[in-house]
Amino acid sequence: RIMRPDDANIAGNVHGGTILKMIEEAGAIISTRHCNSQAGEPCVAALARVERTDFLSPMCIGEVANVSAEITYTSRHSVEVQVNVMSENILTGAKKVTNKATLWYVPLSLKNVNKVLEVPPIQYARKEQEDEGKKRYEEQKLDRLETKQRNGDVILPIINPEPHTVGYSQSSLIHLVGPSDCTLLGFVHGGVTMKLMDEVAGIVAARHCKTNIVTASVDAINFHEKIKKGCVITVSGRMTFTSNKSMEIEVFVDADPFVDEPRERYRAVSAFFTYVSLSREGKPLPVPQLLTETEDEKRRFEEGKGRYLQTKAKRQAQMQQSAQ
Amino acid sequence: RIMRPDDANIAGNVHGGTILKMIEEAGAIISTRHCNSQAGEPCVAALARVERTDFLSPMCIGEVANVSAEITYTSRHSVEVQVNVMSENILTGAKKVTNKATLWYVPLSLKNVNKVLEVPPIQYARKEQEDEGKKRYEEQKLDRLETKQRNGDVILPIINPEPHTVGYSQSSLIHLVGPSDCTLLGFVHGGVTMKLMDEVAGIVAARHCKTNIVTASVDAINFHEKIKKGCVITVSGRMTFTSNKSMEIEVFVDADPFVDEPRERYRAVSAFFTYVSLSREGKPLPVPQLLTETEDEKRRFEEGKGRYLQTKAKRQAQMQQSAQ
Amino acid sequence: RIMRPDDANIAGNVHGGTILKMIEEAGAIISTRHCNSQAGEPCVAALARVERTDFLSPMCIGEVANVSAEITYTSRHSVEVQVNVMSENILTGAKKVTNKATLWYVPLSLKNVNKVLEVPPIQYARKEQEDEGKKRYEEQKLDRLETKQRNGDVILPIINPEPHTVGYSQSSLIHLVGPSDCTLLGFVHGGVTMKLMDEVAGIVAARHCKTNIVTASVDAINFHEKIKKGCVITVSGRMTFTSNKSMEIEVFVDADPFVDEPRERYRAVSAFFTYVSLSREGKPLPVPQLLTETEDEKRRFEEGKGRYLQTKAKRQAQMQQSAQ
Repeated sequence: RIMRPDDANIAGNVHGGTILKMIEEAGAIISTRHCNSQAGEPCVAALARVERTDFLSPMCIGEVANVSAEITYTSRHSVEVQVNVMSENILTGAKKVTNKATLWYVPLSLKNVNKVLEVPPIQYARKEQEDEGKKRYEEQKLDRLETKQRNGDVILPIINPEPHTVGYSQSSLIHLVGPSDCTLLGFVHGGVTMKLMDEVAGIVAARHCKTNIVTASVDAINFHEKIKKGCVITVSGRMTFTSNKSMEIEVFVDADPFVDEPRERYRAVSAFFTYVSLSREGKPLPVPQLLTETEDEKRRFEEGKGRYLQTKAKRQAQMQQSAQ
Repeated sequence: RIMRPDDANIAGNVHGGTILKMIEEAGAIISTRHCNSQAGEPCVAALARVERTDFLSPMCIGEVANVSAEITYTSRHSVEVQVNVMSENILTGAKKVTNKATLWYVPLSLKNVNKVLEVPPIQYARKEQEDEGKKRYEEQKLDRLETKQRNGDVILPIINPEPHTVGYSQSSLIHLVGPSDCTLLGFVHGGVTMKLMDEVAGIVAARHCKTNIVTASVDAINFHEKIKKGCVITVSGRMTFTSNKSMEIEVFVDADPFVDEPRERYRAVSAFFTYVSLSREGKPLPVPQLLTETEDEKRRFEEGKGRYLQTKAKRQAQMQQSAQ
Repeated sequence: RIMRPDDANIAGNVHGGTILKMIEEAGAIISTRHCNSQAGEPCVAALARVERTDFLSPMCIGEVANVSAEITYTSRHSVEVQVNVMSENILTGAKKVTNKATLWYVPLSLKNVNKVLEVPPIQYARKEQEDEGKKRYEEQKLDRLETKQRNGDVILPIINPEPHTVGYSQSSLIHLVGPSDCTLLGFVHGGVTMKLMDEVAGIVAARHCKTNIVTASVDAINFHEKIKKGCVITVSGRMTFTSNKSMEIEVFVDADPFVDEPRERYRAVSAFFTYVSLSREGKPLPVPQLLTETEDEKRRFEEGKGRYLQTKAKRQAQMQQSAQ
């Protein structure tokens, strides 16, 4: 579809969150279609995880987003979908790959939302494809367990923070979940949640560096718990790490099922977003160093540095590989 | 994309206007892409006309709309696009054709919005395709001149109307044109206008028969004049004709360029929408007969009857043809 | 959240209605949460009244709106919420108070929408707080009764009106209530209604003075009757008074429950909005004097003048008090 002014920031760059939402909608369609392709209980595919994804080039207002999706692996209870996003300037005909994302879906029964159904297996062209898929499946399973640990954290407000401290830029927004945010099962689309997460992360980044910022990448996102229609969700973000030209922001999503439900507020999702600051000409700018004050902040900064160096090393390894 | 609650009426049927908007977006993308495919001044394709289109089967919340578009004819300054809409139930896999629409676009220069550019010619597989396209082109050109005539009409308010009279159900809405309603040129997308027209027509129909109603077909719509960002548009509808099971509603769009513009209010678009009333089981219901009071109302009723009988005859001819 | 192009007029000023909608959403969340904080029947807080509120400074596209809410008084069946809105320019760090609003909510049972539940009492830091709250409660109760009186009025259309008369600028819009407009109970959010009211009032003001206009203040708004999903609402506005630099517009909301409901059209809300006209530099401009023709128009003009002078006196008293 054509990108509109509301999809973009004031510099005309489409929000990463808008793109994540389109990716998730494509993934939900293809995996729901696949899981219902055999006779049996009807089901809706629910997003369980999005693998780390890079925003390779910015998309602008007036460009057309082409989203294509393909199922690349099925385990007994989950589907792996590969989604590619291309931006197309229909005036010049120029096309660019904007995103490649990998998503994991789980089929939930339409009749009993807590029942996970079985996934019809796909055919692989070559045996290696199946093996590689299985390896990815095992890896993401491990990683999901790990992130469940770090989920107890809470963002407390800070009074009169100094510029460039963590407390200075931290932000949160609340959103009342409406009908159009939800699937047929009455639970929030993963894409809606990701769009809100990107919005908060973007505010944190802009508060920190006071310039035009864009999403550079999103860490793997795990959807631990479903969020029901009528909930209030609180999306909070705080900066965890800065390199010379990038900022890492941790985002939490908490759901408050305050009507009709005896349940306490719970942590539904958490993830790391990386942002860069761009000049008017679209060149990356240096970002102010994050000032850490508490022991926790220093620890998180070091952890962020670890992730940053790991990603950098991985990218260099890939470049060497493709150069060979 | 997946149909959401906001796209549909309370019975779960997707509004005809939502479908018209998707059709127009697809048409605008393919024709803008085509008109920029040769070196030259960059341009944006503006909707000039939509041919009569039937809504063959209703689409429901949760279904996926598949929209495909193809260029079928080019004249020197216009492009004919054929758009097909299929609804797909991704739970059952069932697919149905929802709509087939033909749209005409005109390329306007990005630098000078009043300059119509030339269209790169397409290649035809067979000579007959070109001839048939040319015939359609000539026909629509004639028809556009005709509808310009009837455009002077104004809908006057009626005080304390009786049920089932024209005045009882006539309705109008105003809308302030925002940035997301507009193309790169700063003019309202044809699809946005059609969605508002369908909204008003639907309210007229529901006021008349007080039941659940759906769009059955839309007469050819001509876009005589562009509407600029910041305008207020008034969309008015009145019932012109009822058969046993259908209602015809005439809709006018007037634009009011009231900020910073010396121009008077002008008529931008007009069209006829046909609605049917559906029972809870989706069966067509009889509709109350329209009570005409003035001479003009009686004349419009007869004209509507003419269009109704003509369409009916055409449809029967097609059925006989396809039965042969 | 970040203000987007669609939230604002063509001069980039965020619509008062967008701000009112955010205020109401925050109020609805905090009061629903409070009313469900004790074991008992689940409920949803419905907006009963918004006290008069001033728009202290305009908000612009790209700024972040910070909305905070606090419960300040509880009677047996109602909750008073104080909401503050700050605009923050995240590039410069500049913050401004945009709005302070007081809202009254009533808890309605989720099982039986006509049953008003009891509100858990809040603890007051000092006895005076409770007494002042009680005084505000009694005052608004009186005022609500009064406004119920003036509610019978209807806006009749005028044919070929002269510029600057009441008939020239009066406007109305219709809106079909969709799922996203509604609470869990299936009734329109107060904030959605206020946004539409501001939209109509803004069109009336712009039609009158043909310049860029912004909401300056909103009179107390009482929500007499709920509006159900599937209704068509008609929002009508007419100018009642002009001072040198401000315009007062009276807005009515009528609901038409026309599908499957035997009920007649009824008046749901009414209120006065005050607008000012701004130059390109954001300075207030003089507005054309309203031409009153009928006796009713002259009477309403005098009443508006009364409200204007009263507000002016109150503001001067406050300024003297705070200067002491």
